[in-house]
Amino acid sequence: MRRPAVVLLSGGLDSATVLALACRDGFAVHTLSFDYGQRHSAELRYAQQISKILGAESHRVFPLDLRAIGGSALTDESLAVPEGGGEERGGGIPLTYVPARNTVFLSIALAWAEVLGSQDIFVGVNSQDYSGYPDCRPGFVLAFEELANQATRAGSEGRTMRIHAPLQFLRKSEIIRLGSQLGVNYGLTRSCYQLDREGRSCGRCDSCRLRSEGFIQAGIPDPTPYI
Amino acid sequence: MRRPAVVLLSGGLDSATVLALACRDGFAVHTLSFDYGQRHSAELRYAQQISKILGAESHRVFPLDLRAIGGSALTDESLAVPEGGGEERGGGIPLTYVPARNTVFLSIALAWAEVLGSQDIFVGVNSQDYSGYPDCRPGFVLAFEELANQATRAGSEGRTMRIHAPLQFLRKSEIIRLGSQLGVNYGLTRSCYQLDREGRSCGRCDSCRLRSEGFIQAGIPDPTPYI
Repeated sequence: MRRPAVVLLSGGLDSATVLALACRDGFAVHTLSFDYGQRHSAELRYAQQISKILGAESHRVFPLDLRAIGGSALTDESLAVPEGGGEERGGGIPLTYVPARNTVFLSIALAWAEVLGSQDIFVGVNSQDYSGYPDCRPGFVLAFEELANQATRAGSEGRTMRIHAPLQFLRKSEIIRLGSQLGVNYGLTRSCYQLDREGRSCGRCDSCRLRSEGFIQAGIPDPTPYI
Repeated sequence: MRRPAVVLLSGGLDSATVLALACRDGFAVHTLSFDYGQRHSAELRYAQQISKILGAESHRVFPLDLRAIGGSALTDESLAVPEGGGEERGGGIPLTYVPARNTVFLSIALAWAEVLGSQDIFVGVNSQDYSGYPDCRPGFVLAFEELANQATRAGSEGRTMRIHAPLQFLRKSEIIRLGSQLGVNYGLTRSCYQLDREGRSCGRCDSCRLRSEGFIQAGIPDPTPYI
């Protein structure tokens, strides 16, 4: 029987690649997305679609109103999404950082893993993200794995919990090449912080720029629909 | 200026005592409760009331539908709440264990602490709980503190995050004596897993038994209204 795994899936490029990897590695994959009041909630449609196409067993959207906490341009409408690389990719922590977001997402993934009897959680954090976001760094992933083993029935009974972050040390272009080999259709993923109603990307926000440069560097045509 | 702190507050006896301790220690306390689909959601009224009386700066109730994940007698209506000490207090992990609950609660407390600029989170886990629940053990608290330092802006900038679990090694009777000295009115707290509409406790569930034995052992009259 295939081992169950939980894959955090945003509808973006990175987590779609992680989903393809987990499926290739033989896991029975259950994908988990969050409706957390993000500006770019249209990405949830793409999460559902890519989940089905890549062969996940199930997909759930967990409602989580992070607006009640605030503090990020991605969930707080009074803060502007940075464009042009300044805030987002320079030094320091970007405005688009959502406080403790990955900690909260992984915690809920952990709860679901316990219910499913799964010891494996996959998350798409990667090297270009952790330059700015504290909860994308390798130390964070290791600390969460340790916590998962302390916090759960499985861990306390000696069945080791694993947090898989297979993209951690890859660049965007390497992720795109890997996913393309695995047959991921990136035309069905979105990364833009401010998608329009038709699901078209702005091409200007920092997430769009990272993505589009990744396709150029990978030498693979960018299938993203832009405004 | 007083340092801000986040206190996880359930409306029960333990977390009310922790709130009193954090106030006594000079923190500007922000209390956080969860509406997580618990059977005993009436406890939220008590959380709000005790928060005000003990002098918290603010109180928030975060909606979190753990029923979407299931797996516990406390959130799954198809499972019975154990009575009589068997399931709940014998060996193994109790039916009332909510998968990864404390991990999820602490993660959201961490997000709020970041927004508030707080480095201090208080949680009421204690020695009688961690005999059965994996996420009440000292190793869990230490692992979460390590995670908090990896996961946050504060931690990554060298301002140490602390998870305070001041009841960790106390018995129920010791907690009751301590809180009584601090002026906590335990008549305004509830611990029962199946409160009735008037806020009266059943006196039979394992949480009621632990609480009531605590008052007897502390030699302090039990102010809890029972059915």
